Amino acid sequence: MSLVTVGSVAFDAIETPFGKTDKIIGGAGTYIALSSSYFVKNQNIVAVVGDDFPQEMIDKLGDRGVNLEGLQIKEGEKSFFWSGKYNNDMNSRDTLVTELNVLEHFDPIIPDSYQDCDYLMLGNLSPDVQLKVIDRLEKRPKLVALDTMNFWMDIAMDDLKKTLKAIDILIINDEEARQLSGEYSLVKAAKKIREMGPKYLVIKKGEHGALLFHGTNAFFAPALPLEDVFDPTGAGDTFAGGFMGYLASTDDVSFENMKRGIIAGSAMASFCVEKFGTEKLENLSKSEIEDRIQEFVKLTNFDMVQSI
Amino acid sequence: MSLVTVGSVAFDAIETPFGKTDKIIGGAGTYIALSSSYFVKNQNIVAVVGDDFPQEMIDKLGDRGVNLEGLQIKEGEKSFFWSGKYNNDMNSRDTLVTELNVLEHFDPIIPDSYQDCDYLMLGNLSPDVQLKVIDRLEKRPKLVALDTMNFWMDIAMDDLKKTLKAIDILIINDEEARQLSGEYSLVKAAKKIREMGPKYLVIKKGEHGALLFHGTNAFFAPALPLEDVFDPTGAGDTFAGGFMGYLASTDDVSFENMKRGIIAGSAMASFCVEKFGTEKLENLSKSEIEDRIQEFVKLTNFDMVQSI
Repeated sequence: MSLVTVGSVAFDAIETPFGKTDKIIGGAGTYIALSSSYFVKNQNIVAVVGDDFPQEMIDKLGDRGVNLEGLQIKEGEKSFFWSGKYNNDMNSRDTLVTELNVLEHFDPIIPDSYQDCDYLMLGNLSPDVQLKVIDRLEKRPKLVALDTMNFWMDIAMDDLKKTLKAIDILIINDEEARQLSGEYSLVKAAKKIREMGPKYLVIKKGEHGALLFHGTNAFFAPALPLEDVFDPTGAGDTFAGGFMGYLASTDDVSFENMKRGIIAGSAMASFCVEKFGTEKLENLSKSEIEDRIQEFVKLTNFDMVQSI
Repeated sequence: MSLVTVGSVAFDAIETPFGKTDKIIGGAGTYIALSSSYFVKNQNIVAVVGDDFPQEMIDKLGDRGVNLEGLQIKEGEKSFFWSGKYNNDMNSRDTLVTELNVLEHFDPIIPDSYQDCDYLMLGNLSPDVQLKVIDRLEKRPKLVALDTMNFWMDIAMDDLKKTLKAIDILIINDEEARQLSGEYSLVKAAKKIREMGPKYLVIKKGEHGALLFHGTNAFFAPALPLEDVFDPTGAGDTFAGGFMGYLASTDDVSFENMKRGIIAGSAMASFCVEKFGTEKLENLSKSEIEDRIQEFVKLTNFDMVQSI
C-alpha cells in the first residue's frame, strides 16, 4: 500500500548535555519518511525546501525509496530552520531560533502519482495546510493520521478543530492532549479528544511510552529503557513514521494491528534518540529492527497463569 | 508460604485536590499487609503503635488474616503521624507534619511464631531497624525485599548501604534510584544499585508504571490509566504488598513469576488510589482483583506476528 507523508524537511541545530550540532538535517517530514521507509515501499513525501538544502540529503531520502515528486524546491528562498537546547533531564527544551522561511507560505502540491494514496500521515504543520492536503486528494485515504502541537492550539484552535473532524488518528504528546482537552487525566482527555473527531488517539509520553485509545480499548507500550538518550529530537515523528509505515505495509487497520504498529514505532524511536539528528535512522538493517522489536516483546511479555 | 511485613502502622492526614481527611489509618506496614492479605494466608506484621491507635483498625487487619503478635502497643505513647498535601498534578506533595512518636525508638520484636518466615518485606523504616529484623530471624528467609526513601539516603547512607548488602530485592521509586546511584539514566542507575547488593531491583514510576531489573533481564509494567486518582498515598506500599504477597502465595522466585508479581502489585496499587487512604483496600473481592489483573493483560498484550 502507498503512504503519503506531509511534513517539514528542514535544518535543525541542536544542543544537548552530550554535545552540540551545527545545522543538520531535520524536520518532521524527514524523520517520518526515513522511519516509515523501513516498512513501506511505496512512500511519497509532500514538502518544501529552499535552494539552500543539500542535494546530497535529498538523495539520501531517494535512496531510501522515498518518492520526491511532491518536494518543492523554492529558488532564492531558505529552508525552515529550528534551533533548540535540551535541559539536563532531556525532558524539556528551549527553542532558541525558529525561522519559518519557505514554510511561511507553504502551499502543498499533490502530484498525480500520489492520488491513489491509501495511508496519509500529516506531520506537524499549520492545520490549515493539513486540511488542504486532505481536500486535494481526490479519493479519501483509508487512514488519515495527524500530528500537531501546542503552538497551533494557541494560535489556530478553530482551524485545528475543523481539521480534527477530517482525520482518523490523532498522534500527540501528553501535554498537548491536556491542552487540547482541558483535562489533566489522560483517560478523560482521550474521551474528549475523540469526541472532537478522531476515532483513534495515540498519546506519546516520551520516555514513559505511548498509549493508544479506540472505543473502550486502550493499549500501552513502554519506551525502551536506554543507557543514554543523546538527542530526543525527532523521536515523536520517528514513532509516527514507524507506526504508519507498519500499518501501510501490513494494510490492516484493526486495533490488534495498530498495537503492533505502536511497537514498531516505539522501536524506531528508540533508535532515533541514540544519535544526533537522523544519523541513526539512515542506515539501519532489517535484523537490527527485528531485534529491537523483540526487545519490546521481552520487556513487556508476561503470562499470568495464576493470579489469585 | 509465610510472609512477614515490617513497617509503620500509623495515622495520616491527607489533602488532595479532591478533598481532605482528618486523621485516618495509614503507614507502610498497613498498606503492605492489607494488599498482600489478598494473596497470602500466612501473613504476619511487625510494627509499633501508641495507645491512641483504634482497636477497631487493629481488628480490621486481624479480620484480613494478619497475625498481629508482632504488633507492639506502647502504653502512654502516641502513634506515628504524617500529614501531607498533594499538588494539583498529584505527582508531588508537601509534607506538612511528621511526628515520629513511637517510631523514634522502635525496637522490632520477632515473635517465635514468625521465625520460620519464608518471605520478608521490610517497609520504609530506618535502615538500622530493617537490618535488625534480618539479624533477628534465626533462618534467612527465601526472599528479602526492602523499601526505603530519600530521607534515609540523606541522613543514614552508610547504614542503608550496609542493609542493602543483606537483601535480595530493593523496591524504590525513580527519584530514589537516581539519588542512590547518582545516575539520571534508570538503566545506569539499576546497574550501580545492583552492584550495591540487591540482585533484583524494582523501580516504581508512579503513574508511569514500574520496572523490574535482574541480570540482563528487564520487565516493564504500566500503571493502569485511570479517570481519576483521588489519593496516591500508600500506592507504592500497596504495590510492594501485592508483589510480595503474590510471590509468597505462589512460592516461586523466578524472573517469570516476579513479572506476574509486578502485575499483581500494579493492580492492587490501581485500587489504592481510587479512594482516600486504605478504604478501597479493606473490602475487595477476588473477582474484582482478577478483573483488574485482566485489564493489565488487555492493556499490554500484543502479538507481533509479522514485524518488518
